[in-house]
Amino acid sequence: MKQVPYLLTPGPLTTSATVKAAMQQDWGSWDGDFNRLTTGICERLLQVAGVAEGEGEPYACVPIQGSGTFAVEAVLDTLLTSDSKTLVLINGAYGQRLARMLARRGLAHVVIDKGDYAPPLPDEVEAALIADPGITHVALIHCETSSGILNPLEAIAAVVSRLGRLLIVDSMSAFGALPVNLRELNIAALISSANKCFEGVPGFGFALIRQNLLEQAAGNALSLSLDLHDQWQYLKKTGQWRFTPPTHVVAAFAQALQEHEQEGGVAGRLARYSRNRDRLVAGMQAMGFSTLLEPQWLSPIIVTFLSPQHPEFEFMRFYDEVKQRGFLLYPGKLTEVDSFRIGCIGQLFDEQIDAVLNAIREACEVMGVEMMGVATKPSEANHV
Amino acid sequence: MKQVPYLLTPGPLTTSATVKAAMQQDWGSWDGDFNRLTTGICERLLQVAGVAEGEGEPYACVPIQGSGTFAVEAVLDTLLTSDSKTLVLINGAYGQRLARMLARRGLAHVVIDKGDYAPPLPDEVEAALIADPGITHVALIHCETSSGILNPLEAIAAVVSRLGRLLIVDSMSAFGALPVNLRELNIAALISSANKCFEGVPGFGFALIRQNLLEQAAGNALSLSLDLHDQWQYLKKTGQWRFTPPTHVVAAFAQALQEHEQEGGVAGRLARYSRNRDRLVAGMQAMGFSTLLEPQWLSPIIVTFLSPQHPEFEFMRFYDEVKQRGFLLYPGKLTEVDSFRIGCIGQLFDEQIDAVLNAIREACEVMGVEMMGVATKPSEANHV
Repeated sequence: MKQVPYLLTPGPLTTSATVKAAMQQDWGSWDGDFNRLTTGICERLLQVAGVAEGEGEPYACVPIQGSGTFAVEAVLDTLLTSDSKTLVLINGAYGQRLARMLARRGLAHVVIDKGDYAPPLPDEVEAALIADPGITHVALIHCETSSGILNPLEAIAAVVSRLGRLLIVDSMSAFGALPVNLRELNIAALISSANKCFEGVPGFGFALIRQNLLEQAAGNALSLSLDLHDQWQYLKKTGQWRFTPPTHVVAAFAQALQEHEQEGGVAGRLARYSRNRDRLVAGMQAMGFSTLLEPQWLSPIIVTFLSPQHPEFEFMRFYDEVKQRGFLLYPGKLTEVDSFRIGCIGQLFDEQIDAVLNAIREACEVMGVEMMGVATKPSEANHV
Repeated sequence: MKQVPYLLTPGPLTTSATVKAAMQQDWGSWDGDFNRLTTGICERLLQVAGVAEGEGEPYACVPIQGSGTFAVEAVLDTLLTSDSKTLVLINGAYGQRLARMLARRGLAHVVIDKGDYAPPLPDEVEAALIADPGITHVALIHCETSSGILNPLEAIAAVVSRLGRLLIVDSMSAFGALPVNLRELNIAALISSANKCFEGVPGFGFALIRQNLLEQAAGNALSLSLDLHDQWQYLKKTGQWRFTPPTHVVAAFAQALQEHEQEGGVAGRLARYSRNRDRLVAGMQAMGFSTLLEPQWLSPIIVTFLSPQHPEFEFMRFYDEVKQRGFLLYPGKLTEVDSFRIGCIGQLFDEQIDAVLNAIREACEVMGVEMMGVATKPSEANHV
């Protein structure tokens, strides 16, 4: 089946035909065959995070129904208590969302808010942790897709570990394509979801959590649905999810994990996504578009481009013109500047990157948006 | 594609090939095409509940990611406050789960617990409401799949309405096959999910809620993910789910709703499920099996059969034998008696019911479980 349209987005994203084909069977959610799917997924995710085996405190993989946000909230609800105080590092919508979830539950927290896209820096984190010994946890967004910035996880993790606090990482749109070793970085919990860099379809998320923290977390969660301690215990005891899992989505994810491994795992995927980003940014710059971020902060996940300062540029028309050509772009999410985003992840290769660049060039021509490298043809535009 | 195995279960259940085929496309979760899917689904669900139009307070349909339990907890988290006190009617695991969710949040509640399967009766509800004027809400399981009992919703709704309390109905495994008119029964909120009588695949649930109650519910929810007020507002404003929806599951549900309508809606589905139940119960009784419940309490959703009092009957072996023949049964969930369950819902017709009866007969023969109507052939059994 021809894939129409392609999603140039940070997930849901374009999945392979074989991943979608894995959803052509019904599964009994308590049946042994399905339980083996779940077990295999959890084991593979721990491998990808570098903690399937080896010395040191073991980690557990706990899947949870819902979107990635559900998984993030589940980790906060399960691990944090009235004795905890969390430093939330914010540079975009997903960091803000972390703070909102803590505020709802009345869980103590302070923030470092860097605005729309500046990265939180290790020195700032160190100063905050030294100034407030009451801070027990630090929460960080790995890749903040609001701007597409890749935050300095390793350097921040080193500070947090050295100062003896617990690090919670929302790696929703990075895990699977950015290398991470939970034990080396001494990460308490890392959260991601099925429909990001592993290229599954949306429907569940998962958390990789240090087992000793999970063991201490019995009875913490206010929400039954989001209680990862209970989910973990039930999985260990029965092999089953506590409540009905999205069986077809889980089967698709098992297939997606195989394809991830066949592509060379994290390294293979990072190579392709980086190539996509470089090809995309070069092509866009050749047309006269600019990226929001300096090159060193550009992630291989999603790139924010500034909207052209041209009177004829209007995002929704631009979106529709590009969509008619078979590609879905992603709106901007910045408060201060007009922008739009283009994802590099999913089943995208040179051919699709070149094709979306062509579609963008044609859209600009049709709209009469003159840019370097775009020959506007207003006479044609009237006939489209 | 041949459907193997068939699920004889209360959901996840056997879906049609065309429902599964609807998952062969990727969708942008913010795109207009996907938003129209969501809108269409919500409108149709309100129609099925009899409240798409007409006089009186309007209802809203709010979908929510996760399993049905997530949707139930979302309704409780969104509608209940420290001023509310809920009477929970319990006769099985799902009623107990309601009470557990309230206890977690410290929300005031009292229970009427009828044990494993006896139905809560309208007179008992009336007495409890009269005795305690502080009770603001009543929560009821429509079809308690622990035993398969169909609880007396209409009679209880009449009592709750007459005494001026708000009724929350967990109709997870009944809505779509049992007729219900929210306005006539004066129901405050009804919850169900994609993978039950509408025969979609699992991945989200939904609540139909009186709009004036939702409007008053801003800021109630402790959970961001489960906040149905926010989900509703965002849907109204943008046409989008707040957080990534299970796009493929939603597309499958839109197809499932069309097939539900083509079968004659609730009436058509109830007729087929009732026929399945009657054929199943007659066939099982002919073999010597007994139902847990008296005929008047048997739902057309799932039927509990008592395990034979035979030394050779062991459920897991029975399950495996029937599974080898292409059918997944459902374990029992009763505390007091050994039992197992067989679902009547999903893409099951006379042919499948007859085939599962044959599979059960063969399984008994192979296991050497002599029953009326089952000729055991121990010599054959040794060779399987």
